Amino acid sequence: MNHPTDSTASTAVSEQQTAIEERLIRIVQQSFADCEDPRLKFLMQELVAHLHAFVRSTRLTEAEWNTAIEFLTEVGHITDDRRQEFILLSDVLGLSMQTINVNNEAYEDATEATVFGPFFVDDAPRIELGGDVAGGAAGQPCWVEGTVRDTDGRPVPNARIEVWEADDDGFYDVQYDDDRVCGRAHLYSDEDGGYRFWCLTPTPYPIPHDGPVGRMLAATGRSPMRASHLHFMVSAPELRTLVTHIFVSGDELLASDTVFGVKKSLVKDFVEQSPGTPTPDGRDLGDHTWARADFDIVLAPADS
Amino acid sequence: MNHPTDSTASTAVSEQQTAIEERLIRIVQQSFADCEDPRLKFLMQELVAHLHAFVRSTRLTEAEWNTAIEFLTEVGHITDDRRQEFILLSDVLGLSMQTINVNNEAYEDATEATVFGPFFVDDAPRIELGGDVAGGAAGQPCWVEGTVRDTDGRPVPNARIEVWEADDDGFYDVQYDDDRVCGRAHLYSDEDGGYRFWCLTPTPYPIPHDGPVGRMLAATGRSPMRASHLHFMVSAPELRTLVTHIFVSGDELLASDTVFGVKKSLVKDFVEQSPGTPTPDGRDLGDHTWARADFDIVLAPADS
Repeated sequence: MNHPTDSTASTAVSEQQTAIEERLIRIVQQSFADCEDPRLKFLMQELVAHLHAFVRSTRLTEAEWNTAIEFLTEVGHITDDRRQEFILLSDVLGLSMQTINVNNEAYEDATEATVFGPFFVDDAPRIELGGDVAGGAAGQPCWVEGTVRDTDGRPVPNARIEVWEADDDGFYDVQYDDDRVCGRAHLYSDEDGGYRFWCLTPTPYPIPHDGPVGRMLAATGRSPMRASHLHFMVSAPELRTLVTHIFVSGDELLASDTVFGVKKSLVKDFVEQSPGTPTPDGRDLGDHTWARADFDIVLAPADS
Repeated sequence: MNHPTDSTASTAVSEQQTAIEERLIRIVQQSFADCEDPRLKFLMQELVAHLHAFVRSTRLTEAEWNTAIEFLTEVGHITDDRRQEFILLSDVLGLSMQTINVNNEAYEDATEATVFGPFFVDDAPRIELGGDVAGGAAGQPCWVEGTVRDTDGRPVPNARIEVWEADDDGFYDVQYDDDRVCGRAHLYSDEDGGYRFWCLTPTPYPIPHDGPVGRMLAATGRSPMRASHLHFMVSAPELRTLVTHIFVSGDELLASDTVFGVKKSLVKDFVEQSPGTPTPDGRDLGDHTWARADFDIVLAPADS
């Protein structure tokens, strides 16, 4: 039976037809029976189960299947060393965030994780405590400070803290064609687990939306905007590495972040300071406004 | 909680964690609420449900998610005008066949459909009844004949019959770098619905397996071989277009066709004829063997 493409109603499927469809799933799953890696075998058989369930529950038409093939082909063709459209697709379907959830289960009062995103770089410059992550990127100066401790409340000295963010035009350094390195750095917590740095007050920006993922968002009435955020990755021996952001309270995009990264516990007050307000480290910002935020970090045990 | 990558056991998930994961699914589905096309909205929301179910049921690790991103990137990069690795991927996961099943439900005694495959070409040459589909491709000559009728038993005159197949090296014409056109043609049934043509006895061949899909098959212990087959697409006014193959009885690959295209009703006897056996149309094949097969085609109503 053919189904109109504008229909969302489920259609009664005959017993004979159901048997044909279920038999195919069993045969496909069985084709992986000789896979020697039990985890890979399980993943492939589960993938088959869930993808076939999608085709059956939607009674996917052949034209829609074709559209899906063309879409994935475009996603593949726009992806290169500088742009990862498959990660973007995973992000906007919430799959990146769900993978983060599954791998970072809630543990006591440990800080919650969120999406990694495509803009981390391995060899960001080191700064001292109180140094500037901005590294020349444009934006409002912002002082961030806090402590790193474990779930037993013990300070974590010498934790490695990676920080990265977009400039106030909404771009990360790697999105420019020059080889600039800015808006990213790493530093280490002091002996009491304390840390502090200058950076830029985060501003909202769209994910790259001039490709197939952007067209999908437009076709489905979704915004490409991400809520303002500052990326963190915090690691220390015997503790679970934390990949997270902090978000800006009051940001109107908190409820519609296009990659679903926002968690209530990660929303922080970025308190704007009038020009001339003394800075924590005596830095002279002339007649510029600046902001400050506190972020205390709690790391779970590595084996939690 | 971290899960070992070799585990297939499901892990108890806390109520708090379950709530977090289910809440994310609701939020992602809700993000499509403003989609104006109800069918697209339904497809996206179902896709989200089934893909998230896969991530949750497997407790997919971040490393596995990364591997999936890298795999899809490779599938995208090897795909071009001559090679469609996404179709291949859909084929070996049985998704192409399931889509065919869903869109071609069993109807009375109508001939069953199977996968379209990536090698059809729109403007294949026309041949007369009794003409040769091979067009110079190498292989054993084979005579195929039958009738086209509808599910009320009425002959279907002037049905358009497209036929295509690989040569006996296992390649379709479009897989060669020259611009040869062979192993494909179309013809029309006569006033009694009868048809007949020469072609090549089908031989088994592997799908292109030098790319990421081939590596996945190897890693999971699967063969890249397709059972021997001859492609048909048959169309006539007011009848459902039939895309199918016929397979060769006795072929040892019938049970393990790598794209799951085999249906029992489509397996036919290709009866080998000794050298010198008179041919149906008097064609002189010298001292060559040849084969013959019968295939009666039944088309369902277009609105079935």
